[in-house]
Amino acid sequence: MMGPLPPDDRGFTLGDGLFETVLAEAGVLVRLPAHLARLAAGCEALGLPAPDPAEAEGLLREALTHAGLTDTRAAARLTLTAGSGGRGLDRPAAPVIRLVATAAAARRPADPARLATSAVRRNDASPASRLKTLSYLDNVLARAQAREAGADEALMLNTTGEMACAAAANVFWIEGGRLFTPALDCGALAGVTRAEVLAAAARLGISTHQTRATPEVLANAEAVFLTNALVGVRPVVELDGRGFAPHALSAALAAAIS
Amino acid sequence: MMGPLPPDDRGFTLGDGLFETVLAEAGVLVRLPAHLARLAAGCEALGLPAPDPAEAEGLLREALTHAGLTDTRAAARLTLTAGSGGRGLDRPAAPVIRLVATAAAARRPADPARLATSAVRRNDASPASRLKTLSYLDNVLARAQAREAGADEALMLNTTGEMACAAAANVFWIEGGRLFTPALDCGALAGVTRAEVLAAAARLGISTHQTRATPEVLANAEAVFLTNALVGVRPVVELDGRGFAPHALSAALAAAIS
Repeated sequence: MMGPLPPDDRGFTLGDGLFETVLAEAGVLVRLPAHLARLAAGCEALGLPAPDPAEAEGLLREALTHAGLTDTRAAARLTLTAGSGGRGLDRPAAPVIRLVATAAAARRPADPARLATSAVRRNDASPASRLKTLSYLDNVLARAQAREAGADEALMLNTTGEMACAAAANVFWIEGGRLFTPALDCGALAGVTRAEVLAAAARLGISTHQTRATPEVLANAEAVFLTNALVGVRPVVELDGRGFAPHALSAALAAAIS
Repeated sequence: MMGPLPPDDRGFTLGDGLFETVLAEAGVLVRLPAHLARLAAGCEALGLPAPDPAEAEGLLREALTHAGLTDTRAAARLTLTAGSGGRGLDRPAAPVIRLVATAAAARRPADPARLATSAVRRNDASPASRLKTLSYLDNVLARAQAREAGADEALMLNTTGEMACAAAANVFWIEGGRLFTPALDCGALAGVTRAEVLAAAARLGISTHQTRATPEVLANAEAVFLTNALVGVRPVVELDGRGFAPHALSAALAAAIS
């Protein structure tokens, strides 16, 4: 559906749903199968029926066309909700999912990212922490804290103080030629680009480590970068006031996945 | 507004907003000032402008009238969102809040509650854990787990294993004539009825304790009950298979706040 939403939609009333943000380059939906596979896995984790992939793709294409964005760089967003109804928190016995697609122009950020560690923690004690859900208020609050600190993205720790991810990206670091990123069970979002970068690094013969680590380990890091579907690999130039220089390995990974 | 929602509403896309569920008895909005005060406090915590109380009340009354529920027992729900727009997680510089009201019939539950402890934890490391936000998926998941366990409500612990609240209620227990409930900074929702019960207990000369406690303390409890705006005081008859008998003090508190 492309029109207005009913106010009893559970995505609206309870954040009961998921979303995907897909990069569209001149009408080509980049890594769409990986996005739809993640969405289906999220539906399974939440106990919701998975969407029909052809319908999902059709809605995304329709949104791009409707917004006049088929010949430029755009973000196509697919929102899936648990649909209408149920009594309070309880879903109907057989929820009927609702799909909504929207599209907006998306420039690639020209600058590297400045990060600030947020006091808002990722709830790694919830399965939702690995999913891209409509209950994203903690991420909104973390981002707002980062902006107040003069940064443009938040580093989020989990409830035991280990690094999880950024508010809208995964985080990687490089040390001694090796590539590190928080393990998913730290409360990290299972990023499509995160997986792509890990696979590209393996192809390039780089040693990769999905790990549990507190931010102190970054004292020894040579570089830090963020990943998501819209920015690809985005270098971090600063974290909580400490500077990081550009790094050949980040550039190689950015090129490998583009 | 009573009509359909725009799909770029941040309540829908990111769970960026708050809600109140107000008991309406034959058209009377019970404890409306306390609900609107909590909503205003939530707006301040989230960095959103507070709604006009007269407009909020008008929308709730309109929803009750529209649903034909002005002469019965009903739940009137007010949803407040951060409105439309912004780029991704970032809100517009001056967000314009959106208010939506709905109403539904609400019978008082005839039976006492059966509770099951959920594996989904309250994120006490987020300010959102004290607020009634639109990012309520953890509560939906906790409730679903309780239903699967044959119970009808979930007891939620915080990230350090202390009791916080139920999925859609606060939790109290009685031991040696004293009344206990988790402190707000355990990740408990700041319930309107919770505050009402604490005040009623103080008036009745009952010793009250807002405390940090793991569920093991319930081994010594004589009674457990839940509170929320729709059920008032609801006795708990079972928690994880252990039975609890009715208790005169729960009944006295139920009478004192009704």
